[in-house]
Amino acid sequence: MAAYTAVGQRAKRLDAPAKLTGQERYTADLKPAGLLFARPVGSTYAHARILGVDKSAALSVPGVVAVLTADDLPISRDENGQPVKAPIAFGEALYAGHIIALVLAESDAAAQDGVAAVEVDYEPLEVIATLDQALDPASAHVRETRQQANDEEAGMHNSDAVTEAEADEEDLPSNVSNTVRFDRGNIEAGFAAAARVVEHTFESLSVHQGYLETQGCLVAIDALGDLTVYTSTQAAFYCRTRVAETVNLPVQKVDVVPMPVGGGFGGKFVLVEPLVAAAAVAVGRPVLLQYSRMEDFLAGNPAPDCRITVKLGADADGNLTALQARLVFDTGSSGGSPLQIASILLGGSYRVPNLEIRGHEVLTHKPGAGAYRAPGAQQAAFAMESAIDELARALGDDALDLRLRNCVVEGDPRPNGAAWPRIGLKQCLEALRDHPAWIDREHARAAGRGVGIAVGGWPGGIEPATAVCRLDANGKLTVVLGSVDLTGTNTTFAQVAAESFGLAPDDIQVTTASTDSAPFAGGTGGSKITYTVGKAVEKAADEARRQIMEIAAQHLEAAVADLEIVDGVVRVKGVPGSGLSLEQIAGMTMGFTARHEPVYGTGSTAIAESAPGFAAHLAEVEVDDLTGETRVVRYVAVQDVGFAINPAAVEAQIHGGVAQGIGWALYEGMTYDGDGQLLTATFQDYVLPRAEMIPPIETVLVEVPSEHGAYGAKGVGEPPAIPGPATVANAVRDATGLRVTSLPIRPETLARAMWSAPQAAD
Amino acid sequence: MAAYTAVGQRAKRLDAPAKLTGQERYTADLKPAGLLFARPVGSTYAHARILGVDKSAALSVPGVVAVLTADDLPISRDENGQPVKAPIAFGEALYAGHIIALVLAESDAAAQDGVAAVEVDYEPLEVIATLDQALDPASAHVRETRQQANDEEAGMHNSDAVTEAEADEEDLPSNVSNTVRFDRGNIEAGFAAAARVVEHTFESLSVHQGYLETQGCLVAIDALGDLTVYTSTQAAFYCRTRVAETVNLPVQKVDVVPMPVGGGFGGKFVLVEPLVAAAAVAVGRPVLLQYSRMEDFLAGNPAPDCRITVKLGADADGNLTALQARLVFDTGSSGGSPLQIASILLGGSYRVPNLEIRGHEVLTHKPGAGAYRAPGAQQAAFAMESAIDELARALGDDALDLRLRNCVVEGDPRPNGAAWPRIGLKQCLEALRDHPAWIDREHARAAGRGVGIAVGGWPGGIEPATAVCRLDANGKLTVVLGSVDLTGTNTTFAQVAAESFGLAPDDIQVTTASTDSAPFAGGTGGSKITYTVGKAVEKAADEARRQIMEIAAQHLEAAVADLEIVDGVVRVKGVPGSGLSLEQIAGMTMGFTARHEPVYGTGSTAIAESAPGFAAHLAEVEVDDLTGETRVVRYVAVQDVGFAINPAAVEAQIHGGVAQGIGWALYEGMTYDGDGQLLTATFQDYVLPRAEMIPPIETVLVEVPSEHGAYGAKGVGEPPAIPGPATVANAVRDATGLRVTSLPIRPETLARAMWSAPQAAD
Repeated sequence: MAAYTAVGQRAKRLDAPAKLTGQERYTADLKPAGLLFARPVGSTYAHARILGVDKSAALSVPGVVAVLTADDLPISRDENGQPVKAPIAFGEALYAGHIIALVLAESDAAAQDGVAAVEVDYEPLEVIATLDQALDPASAHVRETRQQANDEEAGMHNSDAVTEAEADEEDLPSNVSNTVRFDRGNIEAGFAAAARVVEHTFESLSVHQGYLETQGCLVAIDALGDLTVYTSTQAAFYCRTRVAETVNLPVQKVDVVPMPVGGGFGGKFVLVEPLVAAAAVAVGRPVLLQYSRMEDFLAGNPAPDCRITVKLGADADGNLTALQARLVFDTGSSGGSPLQIASILLGGSYRVPNLEIRGHEVLTHKPGAGAYRAPGAQQAAFAMESAIDELARALGDDALDLRLRNCVVEGDPRPNGAAWPRIGLKQCLEALRDHPAWIDREHARAAGRGVGIAVGGWPGGIEPATAVCRLDANGKLTVVLGSVDLTGTNTTFAQVAAESFGLAPDDIQVTTASTDSAPFAGGTGGSKITYTVGKAVEKAADEARRQIMEIAAQHLEAAVADLEIVDGVVRVKGVPGSGLSLEQIAGMTMGFTARHEPVYGTGSTAIAESAPGFAAHLAEVEVDDLTGETRVVRYVAVQDVGFAINPAAVEAQIHGGVAQGIGWALYEGMTYDGDGQLLTATFQDYVLPRAEMIPPIETVLVEVPSEHGAYGAKGVGEPPAIPGPATVANAVRDATGLRVTSLPIRPETLARAMWSAPQAAD
Repeated sequence: MAAYTAVGQRAKRLDAPAKLTGQERYTADLKPAGLLFARPVGSTYAHARILGVDKSAALSVPGVVAVLTADDLPISRDENGQPVKAPIAFGEALYAGHIIALVLAESDAAAQDGVAAVEVDYEPLEVIATLDQALDPASAHVRETRQQANDEEAGMHNSDAVTEAEADEEDLPSNVSNTVRFDRGNIEAGFAAAARVVEHTFESLSVHQGYLETQGCLVAIDALGDLTVYTSTQAAFYCRTRVAETVNLPVQKVDVVPMPVGGGFGGKFVLVEPLVAAAAVAVGRPVLLQYSRMEDFLAGNPAPDCRITVKLGADADGNLTALQARLVFDTGSSGGSPLQIASILLGGSYRVPNLEIRGHEVLTHKPGAGAYRAPGAQQAAFAMESAIDELARALGDDALDLRLRNCVVEGDPRPNGAAWPRIGLKQCLEALRDHPAWIDREHARAAGRGVGIAVGGWPGGIEPATAVCRLDANGKLTVVLGSVDLTGTNTTFAQVAAESFGLAPDDIQVTTASTDSAPFAGGTGGSKITYTVGKAVEKAADEARRQIMEIAAQHLEAAVADLEIVDGVVRVKGVPGSGLSLEQIAGMTMGFTARHEPVYGTGSTAIAESAPGFAAHLAEVEVDDLTGETRVVRYVAVQDVGFAINPAAVEAQIHGGVAQGIGWALYEGMTYDGDGQLLTATFQDYVLPRAEMIPPIETVLVEVPSEHGAYGAKGVGEPPAIPGPATVANAVRDATGLRVTSLPIRPETLARAMWSAPQAAD
């Protein structure tokens, strides 16, 4: 490895001081003059026609300024008259909590009082609350107009969504809003060639992103109608376009100011911004809507629930022969579930000559499906990795050997036919194979614990990006970006720019500008920002360096090739004291005596090939044989990260992903009753893992460099959040003999199974 | 001329809707949470030792939060212990109104009450109020430490300030803070060769910039000590550096947000910002200081008063033989007068083989000298153009012919030896010669009016600059700049970018970003922004166009050379319907399916040669022979503008400059009494010309293209403000026979002279 001075080092996050001292200021901390506080009137019913909204009592509440329904808001309508891209009901409430009106008031308390005083006249309608109801041809339509899947949403997060899935030709129930179908080889012949076949059906509940900071945004409007959107978004430019579309303005009249994000996890690309913008336009004053926790549970955009059946066969040598899968994703009341990426990932980790995957997305009376850190991948991995675990048992094979024998490598096809580029799945499995936790697994078993493993992969997102690297008056550098700083990405970019100059990351300021002036970047999500923007930063810094060297070469009367930068001084190689400091060069480019152009390097990327990342996890669990409670006592996370620009940040990403995976496995799940009412709308009912529920996490970084990322880096956000549910479930199987097929793994389910028939849980 | 579609057209200003409807929001309109209002405690004396400041009564005023003297503020000190770059007294008040303390309060009213309650214990000291006192070797020092001239200040506005003036070797009075000296040929021989010699001494008072919006800024501070400076500045980056220096922070911790400027005219580069920043640091809360009108008169940075003696000779053929000049500029209590540029300009408009110019800058007990639209040029032109007018009379020559015969052209030397580049002085004089107002001047005289002419020139500023041109999602373009929009400069830049794309200026958004992320540009002043940034915008737009054409060429399968942009569509030349819209191309560069790099053009300039601009003016005046009141009834302003990108904006600049010139000639003047007390600290006492005092202005645009400006443009801000005083004075001479030697031309002075000795006014 080259001797790097800045990248590959454990760097402290630039945003740490503000966050660690509680001084960071978030959207809801903004208090512009004239601010109105918005509170939503949420639907009492999961499905109802709205016959009328009586605002009079609410408007008489002191401090209440307006009660706005969809009819009062300047929201663009599509050809069906439906409001575009704004989470408000247009005559028909589609889920419990669906916003029927916004109450705007001078204080939050007044707005809450106003909400209580709004009287809505409902006509309750039939509720589609379950997958089975949605798949029943006899059921009523969830909506009057059938919606198409929103590929744009899925594409924000991963590159495989671009694939054209083959449309299913069958006659479908009306609530099926999207289908996918992938075929390879001959599925019957595949199963005929199998020595062992396993088949299971897996279910998982809707899971909430669980960010500390709820969804919220503040939209200010000036007298000319220009909007400034202060928001906790992961994707400023995408949000800008969506807001502009909704209120029918050119994008130039919408400036999105990315505020610090108090947790996003895929759920904060755009949600309430268009609605709040429309409200600000309607009243001509700044409006803040910051969801309460319950509002966020009711009207957020959580990960969808789904049901996946996997049938998997292998020959006697442990080579996979056939994979058949059926996926049904609940997309709630609007399209956008990760059905396609889940289908591709489910069949993407292993070489299997015969494959048949069918997927359906169905509409129900729940909020729209959103992205949650590796959307679709956890569900797919939970099903596939559970199935292959059972297959290993059926074959009498080693769970790791079976995976290693069949895992995909560069050139192997995905279900959609696209070949994998260089990937590190095999290397991850090998590293896990050599890890003491795997080698010594019998010791754990002897102590009554179960050991489970699972893998997960993520294709990685791509999107063009530009970055700027500017030399400032004091000889330091500023990197200007349009990407939102999440999980320390700006710190990573500081390292990349610093590397070009031989400076410390502290000498680099990284600024995310607002959309009025920022260079373009996609959303910080889908494991793509470091991969796409990082390379743009590297190119911008290299270009800034080139400009500096040209200036120095003239003044030092030396060839550029003979110069170096040491400690912020450009000098003739090996000649200390001969140089010009970066501050001196800055003075030659700015100020009235300056005669050189300002140093302003730009770099752009339009990487066509994504850099998929794989992870292999191991969990040791203890299951209380009385209560059925599962405790994870050891966790190993191996991940191919390409190149860890900031190992501390990469490990932190893995820690967080593992914790979320354990939450998904054991605790989290949004439960709706038969009327479509959410039973888990508070953190009393919806359980997030707390620190004591998470064991120490051992991380192993595998570095199979990407071809296009800065220094070989890949996006690392998604992969560590994927294998968790399957890993824990496989460990539970190891500990108890029970195959878990439903998430989360509830103690009562395990206990009931252990007390009765020990061979089938759930 | 090429057939331009956007430049050369009269474009409406992009900022007009907000300003014309009263909707623009200025610095003082900002009301962040926790804002403190600052009011200054100004010195009662023009010179005093501050023995003590009793804050107790002020601090007991309800709402008053702090009373801060220099000792309480984190202001960096220079080696003499003097506060750096902040207008606050450090133990010694140097002018009446010098800020001794800032009172910070929850409301402006409380702050004013607090100011009234602060008790300052003064020891009055000797006051140097006049040039003669300052030049008297027996006078006390104005300050304990002698200051050097601040070339940086002058250089912000013009390029000639870079010249190294020859230092005078004579033994100087201690209050002389700077000297210049230029010599050419043999001055005695020059006068010996003259057939006629005239000699006069001219004086002009200090003049205030008279902006509608007073000096003010708001500095916010976050918990980490980062400052955001919202200010009505012409020069965001310069302001950033100065604030950072003062409070001893790296520039990266200071973000200057340029707010709309309610009039600047050179006076708003930086003034109160460092002081307010120090106050915000001291109290950890946002602080707004917005001068009252009186505070602005007392503690602003007006143009300095001066005295200039000119001795000028010509031979019998009307060729100049010798010019001797003595200039004394009053720089107030700190250096920074435009002595050097005045000296160069005074001797720069005409070819004269023998020349001797001596200049002195002296310190007095007045506020520091500031820049006012063409700093030093009005005073120099008033002296020189009055003198040449007298010389024409002495020679019996025509005032215009004498100027035309001797005016400088490309290659002629300035007093500092630098040759003039291509300039349009001769062309301006020729255009004026051919103007009906000059041709028919005898008609005016027959009607009892006087006709006067004068010329003025400005070297033009230069400073490196970068501009960005970005393609947005909807196919429109955004130009991102670091220069402040003044007098419609951003509209001009929109035209430049539009020209590259065949779009209307309305399709271009021009954004001035804050210093955290903006590309560098110098201050908008000194007639340099259009010249330096305009070319950068042109280059950036051309680069953006090139990137767009490359993408289109791939998709249209055509060579770039065969493509054109028509109505926002890139198409094969002459083939309508074959093309890709800019919006389609934008979609290929942004979004998850995009596979081309974002279009992000940058352009930089480091123009080494300035583009001097000249103007020739004519005024017709009537002088009331009873009251001495002068009324300007006709005004012609000829100006070489290089190329008028927006003729409407150029003419507006000329209108404003002429109005200010007439104000300088007839109305404006800051008058101090012998104790250094300002007698004209309100608009009751300090007379700005009102609309009815300004005649219709006939503008003639001469276009001698510059070599480096966009489309040949030159800066046009300064030149129209220069010839006014001399033009009006020469017209008064023509009408009355009285040679005015003192500005402003007061009615009582003329009346007294007309009633007594008609040959010498003042």
